[in-house]
Amino acid sequence: MADKAQLQEAIKTQGEVVRKLKSEKASKEQIDEEVAKLLQLKAQLGGDEGKHVFVLKTAKGTRDYNPKQMAIREKVFNIIISCFKRHGAETIDTPVFELKETLTGKYGEDSKLIYDLKDQGGELLSLRYDLTVPFARYLAMNKITNIKRYHIAKVYRRDNPAMTRGRYREFYQCDFDIAGQYDAMIPDAECLKIVYEILNELDLGDFHIKVNDRRILDGMFAVCGVPGEKFRTICSTVDKLDKMAWEDVKKEMVNEKAPAEQNGADEAGVSVGSVAGGGRYDGLVGMFDPKGRKVPCVGVSIGIERIFSIMEQKAETSSEKVRTTETQVLVASAQKNLLEERLKLTSELWNAGIKVEVLYKKNPKLLSQLQHCEETGIPLVAILGEQELKDGVVKLRNVASREEVRLIVSQIVYNLSCILTKHFD
Amino acid sequence: MADKAQLQEAIKTQGEVVRKLKSEKASKEQIDEEVAKLLQLKAQLGGDEGKHVFVLKTAKGTRDYNPKQMAIREKVFNIIISCFKRHGAETIDTPVFELKETLTGKYGEDSKLIYDLKDQGGELLSLRYDLTVPFARYLAMNKITNIKRYHIAKVYRRDNPAMTRGRYREFYQCDFDIAGQYDAMIPDAECLKIVYEILNELDLGDFHIKVNDRRILDGMFAVCGVPGEKFRTICSTVDKLDKMAWEDVKKEMVNEKAPAEQNGADEAGVSVGSVAGGGRYDGLVGMFDPKGRKVPCVGVSIGIERIFSIMEQKAETSSEKVRTTETQVLVASAQKNLLEERLKLTSELWNAGIKVEVLYKKNPKLLSQLQHCEETGIPLVAILGEQELKDGVVKLRNVASREEVRLIVSQIVYNLSCILTKHFD
Repeated sequence: MADKAQLQEAIKTQGEVVRKLKSEKASKEQIDEEVAKLLQLKAQLGGDEGKHVFVLKTAKGTRDYNPKQMAIREKVFNIIISCFKRHGAETIDTPVFELKETLTGKYGEDSKLIYDLKDQGGELLSLRYDLTVPFARYLAMNKITNIKRYHIAKVYRRDNPAMTRGRYREFYQCDFDIAGQYDAMIPDAECLKIVYEILNELDLGDFHIKVNDRRILDGMFAVCGVPGEKFRTICSTVDKLDKMAWEDVKKEMVNEKAPAEQNGADEAGVSVGSVAGGGRYDGLVGMFDPKGRKVPCVGVSIGIERIFSIMEQKAETSSEKVRTTETQVLVASAQKNLLEERLKLTSELWNAGIKVEVLYKKNPKLLSQLQHCEETGIPLVAILGEQELKDGVVKLRNVASREEVRLIVSQIVYNLSCILTKHFD
Repeated sequence: MADKAQLQEAIKTQGEVVRKLKSEKASKEQIDEEVAKLLQLKAQLGGDEGKHVFVLKTAKGTRDYNPKQMAIREKVFNIIISCFKRHGAETIDTPVFELKETLTGKYGEDSKLIYDLKDQGGELLSLRYDLTVPFARYLAMNKITNIKRYHIAKVYRRDNPAMTRGRYREFYQCDFDIAGQYDAMIPDAECLKIVYEILNELDLGDFHIKVNDRRILDGMFAVCGVPGEKFRTICSTVDKLDKMAWEDVKKEMVNEKAPAEQNGADEAGVSVGSVAGGGRYDGLVGMFDPKGRKVPCVGVSIGIERIFSIMEQKAETSSEKVRTTETQVLVASAQKNLLEERLKLTSELWNAGIKVEVLYKKNPKLLSQLQHCEETGIPLVAILGEQELKDGVVKLRNVASREEVRLIVSQIVYNLSCILTKHFD
């Protein structure tokens, strides 16, 4: 425990750091990080000053998805899942953590990026680093030698991510893999076709798909005199040619691979770098099988976070509003004391499968009910009134055009369903 | 490191444990656990005997979902998500881990069940224990005072689960919550309506929804002379009346709450216990807000794992086969050397959005192609033949009825789409 005077001094200093960053208009990310440190110091102080002071942030390198971001995420997932299903893939799911030893020895120098769980007694566990190793474990464990499956789930890497460019410590992977022994390279071709279809349908702009074979590069290394055991480590340096200048790559090669810097900046501004990758891994399943039986595999992984970033930016600049609900009708009232009637009609429409909202106030104003529709994009509003109820009708208003029709209460489900199918599907 | 002779002895003893359990026809769960220990010992031995010996299992209390289980899970989620959307809810997502201090002080004696991450430098993190605390943190952090949201995600508890009854250490929660100050208890009523709609639509059989208020119970405690600070701890014992005999509950009460045993057996055989729960939590968001500002909340959580278990059992005994893909057409060939033609047609159909598979073999037999359709439930097969290709047609066979029609190649997308819409939607 630091003493109180020291803490107060540290808080003062940290407060100045935050003010300085703000005055310099530093990035939100940077400011947030320093504010969090400040709050943490204040929390340590305890007593009245520290009371209720929580560090209100998500863990480093992670983020929440708000409803608008979720709407975009759902749209992207729908495109990707439709494509996987169109190609006849099944899906599986595996736990978010694996036995630590399942991940050991699979990731080379990147193993230091694996999140381990604390030893609280029992098995030693780690968070999954990708979906490929759990898939191989699943195949070996269930003795499956043939499957075409997709798996969409979050993976975890203790990296130093640049979140502004859509890189996180918790992020989604969308994997499509084909396991099995086949006499032609059709599965390999299908993986490329899948990437093409998805990137095309996401409509992100031009893209290149690069096809390579490590053995060609290995041949070049051999000719250059690189010793065999250095092939893999040199390869991961060559991979950086896309992101770093040749001089820097050369320096890394010659200086025998200094600890890898993962957050090298993307060059060209407009280019977003790689959003998918894949290849063959014919030896991995055999590493899990007690008898070393091999299951040849090929697959591709879509790196969805960068795609989300691009889509979110597009949505920001687009004039079209992103809806975060699918509500079709708001049940409203024009006068006071109609709460029960509003709830009754709402319930009837819910039971008929129609997507309906009702404001929770006892006596909401008609104007605020109409405003709610405009703010959230609800296309229709059913307006209850005393006279209309006596006449056995309900007014239905089109929020955008302000057109109104009267619907007979006893036939409202049928008529409303017809209108929705015809005009709002 | 244990010495080799000791290890060999331990392996021998553990081998006997496994054989004994198998001869006693112990539960699969129990046998798997002991086999895992055996494999772990063998792995420690290393050398030739230990080579390639991996412990092929998922972490304790977790499970993989195979394609059939995923198909059932998707069906259940669709019903639940449709209901949430029908009620106009938005959705959010939060990271799988939170700062440890975000979870501290929220779960009382259950805090010991929280999974902590290992301290690898940086922030101290824990896996989320439920979706409610992250939701409250999200509201306070973003200063949101009004929202109706759902969140479907996995949560983590280091419990001693009985997996055969659908209880796990990693499991899904499907939460629907309404935050905001309202003048009538409509949000509370909507939560009950949601549970009713979902359980009804899942068609699991009869169910009871019990409505309670803790204050009634508190009044009874006060009359009985229970001191105020014991209310909460006694309450969690009263909760067990559903699962334990009165004598046991009484013993726990009187002996002042021995460490809680979470794995008390469900009584009545056919009853599956509780599959949903919820209530108000008006103080939680205020715990996160620096100024203690309260946001009244009410919500309900659907415990989906038990529902999966019931649905899986139903699927096992049902005569109807669960499909794990959505493939509509298999592109097949009746003769050899038609690989390119098969791929060309497959690609054309994919581009038109039709769900198509093609076998990866160069020259598959027609019989094995038809068998694949029958095994996986593909309803239609397009059969290419040399003569048909010359005539510019493709045979389309209904796998179940064996009826065949000829489709003109140049109009195949249009005609196939019509047939699929008419007969297989």
